[in-house]
Amino acid sequence: MTLKYYHAEPLANSLKSMVPLIEKGLPWQSIYVDLHKFEQHEPWFTAVNPEGQVPVLDHDGVIITHTTVIGEYLEDAFPDAPPLRPADPVGKARMRYWNKFTDEHVMNHVSMHGWHRMVGVIARSIESGDFEKLLERIPLHEQREKWRTARSGFNEADLANATRKIDVAVDKVEKQLADTQWIAGDMYTLADINLFSMLGMAAARMFPEKNYDQRAPRFTEWVQRMYGRAGVKAALAMPNRTNPALRTFTGEAR
Amino acid sequence: MTLKYYHAEPLANSLKSMVPLIEKGLPWQSIYVDLHKFEQHEPWFTAVNPEGQVPVLDHDGVIITHTTVIGEYLEDAFPDAPPLRPADPVGKARMRYWNKFTDEHVMNHVSMHGWHRMVGVIARSIESGDFEKLLERIPLHEQREKWRTARSGFNEADLANATRKIDVAVDKVEKQLADTQWIAGDMYTLADINLFSMLGMAAARMFPEKNYDQRAPRFTEWVQRMYGRAGVKAALAMPNRTNPALRTFTGEAR
Repeated sequence: MTLKYYHAEPLANSLKSMVPLIEKGLPWQSIYVDLHKFEQHEPWFTAVNPEGQVPVLDHDGVIITHTTVIGEYLEDAFPDAPPLRPADPVGKARMRYWNKFTDEHVMNHVSMHGWHRMVGVIARSIESGDFEKLLERIPLHEQREKWRTARSGFNEADLANATRKIDVAVDKVEKQLADTQWIAGDMYTLADINLFSMLGMAAARMFPEKNYDQRAPRFTEWVQRMYGRAGVKAALAMPNRTNPALRTFTGEAR
Repeated sequence: MTLKYYHAEPLANSLKSMVPLIEKGLPWQSIYVDLHKFEQHEPWFTAVNPEGQVPVLDHDGVIITHTTVIGEYLEDAFPDAPPLRPADPVGKARMRYWNKFTDEHVMNHVSMHGWHRMVGVIARSIESGDFEKLLERIPLHEQREKWRTARSGFNEADLANATRKIDVAVDKVEKQLADTQWIAGDMYTLADINLFSMLGMAAARMFPEKNYDQRAPRFTEWVQRMYGRAGVKAALAMPNRTNPALRTFTGEAR
């Protein structure tokens, strides 16, 4: 049995499916895709994933894409490994509710701020002609538009809406954690890993002026608990080749 | 065991979870929520679903919301009923890939055209003061904004982008159906029901000028096959109280 995991730096989507691989104790082979060199748009990679996006799981030649799908796949394919999904139908539904919330109402908004701060710098550092050539290689229309917007700058109204959505998400998590130990109940699940990868590790660091530690103490404590998980620790110890001056997602740079 | 299903007219989201209930042969109690009277924002309904949206499944008092989550829940909670989800991990991943595509890249775009044509008419028929009062009762910010935009009119760029996304979706389905009998493989699954409810029954009827029957013959044949499913037939035979002049989603009116 061979599990290959194509990924970039351990944050956001690349982190999200790496943590389950580690926490489930599965043997996996790391294949680093260098986003700084736009390897995700190169033919060798689009042959693996025609959508030109990381991460990708290759399980004995079967390709699984999209992190929420990969998470459930690992639960289904390795039922004897430590579970990250509740066994009961209601628990599963709660986990999926939160995954859906994170995927549809959180991820893109945090991502927009990340792109605004980091990818915009990268995009503007590329000469015009080269930039157009780069865009031509991007398979997904939405990704092409995102690169174009990153270069010209996201508009203030969109950024403000994204900030508002991040507040809504933090407050919603804070409320949930008054009732349950983890986000989808009393079990640590894929929903925690998703929310941590997309929001938890980024919120306070990207928006220190929000004082989320005061506004959302349970959220803040949960983030610390997440940092303490063995799988999260091991994943975050993976190499990070991003220029330190561009590490805006983790708040190391602004 | 009691299954109550709170729903509106049999189309889009309300159809999407009704078809599985019927196809799985589960005994369920229909509770009609009259969107024309904005019952989804009334206290009796927000007590059931604080998000103020239909449909909702109540299984012996446990509330499950969001149709993709409801679909998986029915599979998990009633394992002895006819399955609408593949048994093997890869099949499940394929189904979830398509559900995610429909939820994130199709639904909102078809919905925008539906709102533009139908809800806009309803919204503009309400006096200003009454309209503001109506908005105040809507729990979700996104829904309030959607109503506001429906009244003032969606902008042309957004509508054009939505139309483009619908083309992309139809072409993507067409390509998939060259390889597999149903959307996620050779089994009829929740992904077919999702895509039919959100796109299949609306595309050709809402956009006759697109000639999807010529452009996408496999898609067109699949839509017809979906209309022939016993569960779809029974669901579509449920009462439709929408004014016939406003039935834009099904193309009965434009």
